[in-house]
Amino acid sequence: MRAVGVITEYNPLHNGHVYQLQQAKALTGADCTVVVMSGNWLQRGEPAILDKWTRAQLALQTGADLVIELPVFYAMQPAHLFAQGGVRLLAELGCESLVFGAEHPDLDFSQLMAAFPSGREAFKQFNATYATLFNAALKTATGQALTKANDMLGFCYYVANQRLGAPMRLIPMQRLGSDHNDTAIQGDQFASGTAIRQAALAGNWDQVERVVPAETLAQLKSNRLVSWADFWPHLQYQLLTTTVDRSGQYDQMAEGLEYRMQDMVQNASNFEDFLAQVKSKRYTYTRLQRVAAAALLQLTTTEVQTAQARPYLRVLGFSATGQQYLHQVKKSLTMPLYTKINKDLRLHELALDYRAGRVYELINQQHQDLYRRPWRFTDNLG
Amino acid sequence: MRAVGVITEYNPLHNGHVYQLQQAKALTGADCTVVVMSGNWLQRGEPAILDKWTRAQLALQTGADLVIELPVFYAMQPAHLFAQGGVRLLAELGCESLVFGAEHPDLDFSQLMAAFPSGREAFKQFNATYATLFNAALKTATGQALTKANDMLGFCYYVANQRLGAPMRLIPMQRLGSDHNDTAIQGDQFASGTAIRQAALAGNWDQVERVVPAETLAQLKSNRLVSWADFWPHLQYQLLTTTVDRSGQYDQMAEGLEYRMQDMVQNASNFEDFLAQVKSKRYTYTRLQRVAAAALLQLTTTEVQTAQARPYLRVLGFSATGQQYLHQVKKSLTMPLYTKINKDLRLHELALDYRAGRVYELINQQHQDLYRRPWRFTDNLG
Repeated sequence: MRAVGVITEYNPLHNGHVYQLQQAKALTGADCTVVVMSGNWLQRGEPAILDKWTRAQLALQTGADLVIELPVFYAMQPAHLFAQGGVRLLAELGCESLVFGAEHPDLDFSQLMAAFPSGREAFKQFNATYATLFNAALKTATGQALTKANDMLGFCYYVANQRLGAPMRLIPMQRLGSDHNDTAIQGDQFASGTAIRQAALAGNWDQVERVVPAETLAQLKSNRLVSWADFWPHLQYQLLTTTVDRSGQYDQMAEGLEYRMQDMVQNASNFEDFLAQVKSKRYTYTRLQRVAAAALLQLTTTEVQTAQARPYLRVLGFSATGQQYLHQVKKSLTMPLYTKINKDLRLHELALDYRAGRVYELINQQHQDLYRRPWRFTDNLG
Repeated sequence: MRAVGVITEYNPLHNGHVYQLQQAKALTGADCTVVVMSGNWLQRGEPAILDKWTRAQLALQTGADLVIELPVFYAMQPAHLFAQGGVRLLAELGCESLVFGAEHPDLDFSQLMAAFPSGREAFKQFNATYATLFNAALKTATGQALTKANDMLGFCYYVANQRLGAPMRLIPMQRLGSDHNDTAIQGDQFASGTAIRQAALAGNWDQVERVVPAETLAQLKSNRLVSWADFWPHLQYQLLTTTVDRSGQYDQMAEGLEYRMQDMVQNASNFEDFLAQVKSKRYTYTRLQRVAAAALLQLTTTEVQTAQARPYLRVLGFSATGQQYLHQVKKSLTMPLYTKINKDLRLHELALDYRAGRVYELINQQHQDLYRRPWRFTDNLG
């Protein structure tokens, strides 16, 4: 059996994602589609609108064969680390290729990587703060630019894959329909996640149903939808009671930013207001949102880096094909494979994902780890 | 001018407290009544039902001349440290005497202190956990027992005062009416704070009005009443996201208790349920409640001990007499006297009280430090 991988967030799963899953198989002739998906906390430092189990179920219902959780210590990171995490897990699972959407699938990533300022070391430092500077240099050197979010992410996949010795073939796909950050649903069939979330939170179901599969629509209508606003009281409380010594240790906190955050929280009336007050030219909203999420989860840089040194494969669900594939690759795995959580894992290996899930549970009131087993779509019951 | 002091919590201020204020003047012939009162968090590790400003106002309306806040690092401590804090502040303010209620005002404290097992060192260790053992030894040695909460507290006042060189004369007063922990209002005029809080939270105003002054009744009826239940979501969130390394540093956390607390919080459905699950023979409810409050406020032992080494006088209000008295003693004070908070004090000297107040504000939505000035009942406008 041959597998193709995709790295996703499915926030929520929409028609563009279904199309991508179909194309992944069509373009590669693979038997099995492996999805590495962020858990309950996402790359841009925000909670998923639907929990990881619901989103994994949707993935299996619409074409995925195996869904693996991208641990929070990779998921809630700048693009290059997010990409590194996803690529590591897919490569570990023996995927032959990685399909991803890009605004400009014809970009020459190898040329870009060659022009990449000072090689590996610079890449290590590479995050949103450096993106603008980096792009200017790149444009001068190659005539190509990485101004779009998915082009950038694609490049990060490319670099991560190269650094592993290029185990996978990278297949960029033209993104369809709306731009990643469009806030309104305009198309007939495709829309951005941002636009879909806004419409869903506002209850504009006639708009939502045009751009998501029926399964997603049903889940959005029947679940408690989660957004940052839900966690604001806890974030506020946390920043009011912690010390700057402590908050300075939160992951991705920049020098001095802890003072600014603990000062601005004094008078902020909601999460948006808080971020707007903290915002300066020095930091992007995404960066600040990730730091806020790290504060909320009390996630320290030390914890994140320690965890990144020992990744694992956490299975959220599989089809009959996925199960077969898992059986095929199991023996050659070097990372631990987890299908359920016990007290020992909760306190150690899976502690950060467990914590992230437990905070999410405070809002959606659904168990995220304890008492959960992977979805088994093995009898075509899905 | 001569001053008499009382150490109080006023949770809430009731007829017994008014009587005590009257007697304090009558018994001593003092011109000025100085009240040292816990702020928003109390000795038994719980939030006050009314905030410190409301309670200070009630004190001034019913006979107090000067109200000083007992800082949280003294207020939310075992009896001996609570007493030590109160006695230090009253002595610093030059009070000649300290009046307090006791179940057995005829107890011979000097005899008890002489019989106190191994003197000062043992007293240092003395807290609720040791109370039972300690009392058995005491009973054998002296025939006297300290089984009642206010007798015990009175003894702590006595020891604290002796250790300062006995600057004040101690005047125990017979407590009237109900026992400290009675949970029902039975008397016609006097009831315990516990019983009054329960009746007020249940809205049984006909019961409450018999045992509190009209001013207290009006405040209870018009304010957002605060109890532990209000803070449970934040405590739960805190214990779910912190690490045992961190929670082990919380003030009064006993060895291993942090594991128990972080384990029990997983399935607790409310604060009472949580405490009941954590409870064992080894710890009293009061002790556990204080640890829970320290966790909520992220108050560490280091912070508390550092703060105890540099106490201050925080003025919550005064009458014309209190103002005059303050003027009289001002020059001889060795502790700083604060009447308002600024950014520097908020971040340093007053940081713990500010933090405790800020958490309280999350529920009652009234500023506790910023924008507040001491009550001035200097023109009999009160």
